[in-house]
Amino acid sequence: MISHGARKRKGSIAERDLIHKFWEADWAAARVAGSGSAQYPQPDILAGNNIRKVVIEAKVTADKAKYFLKQEIEDLKEFAVLFGAEPWVAIKFNKHDWLFINPEDLKETDKGYSINTETAERRGLGFDELLRD
Amino acid sequence: MISHGARKRKGSIAERDLIHKFWEADWAAARVAGSGSAQYPQPDILAGNNIRKVVIEAKVTADKAKYFLKQEIEDLKEFAVLFGAEPWVAIKFNKHDWLFINPEDLKETDKGYSINTETAERRGLGFDELLRD
Repeated sequence: MISHGARKRKGSIAERDLIHKFWEADWAAARVAGSGSAQYPQPDILAGNNIRKVVIEAKVTADKAKYFLKQEIEDLKEFAVLFGAEPWVAIKFNKHDWLFINPEDLKETDKGYSINTETAERRGLGFDELLRD
Repeated sequence: MISHGARKRKGSIAERDLIHKFWEADWAAARVAGSGSAQYPQPDILAGNNIRKVVIEAKVTADKAKYFLKQEIEDLKEFAVLFGAEPWVAIKFNKHDWLFINPEDLKETDKGYSINTETAERRGLGFDELLRD
């Protein structure tokens, strides 16, 4: 079992990798401070250029499916609406590149939402596709 | 002399106060993680609504004037241009409310830029004025 601290570090490293990709593509991007513990809805990453703005909930998982609490996705959408940006869920499954999922493409479950690797591959966008969207 | 840690905490508390104000005004706002140490230009705060986006370098000072390194202001402007947002310098002088300064209104010095309380009061905008801008 992986510790909370190690998981958090792994998440941070993955988020930084995503930040790199945006800057390499001439988008400005920033990680949000305390996104998991703030009193207001906060995404993990904000990125944008002159034309588009995206707010991202970013997750790394070693499992075949990723689960989200209802609140996480509601917060992402609320921030996006207020800020005037597109909400995206970014997931990095083992041995896959980042996939960007429209929150509407997540499957609703009892406690929230989920998506598995296959659906994410089919419905999600790769990084370059996201920027061309 | 105030310690680096105490100054940093004071700065964080002040930034959170600013974040509150934006949410109360129905803008979405977020603090940027590691804004002082990142490899890319990073502002302290991003805020926006459906119409406008602002990126902010926020400073608290007990002095009568505030100094900025050239790089800080260049970074703020670079992020703003790429992200597609307005760059603002927010300063909280002792016993004053937050004042929002257009970076072009800072005075150029040998090492960077500066602004004193009087000029900030004259040229700067209060929070409500910033939102009406």
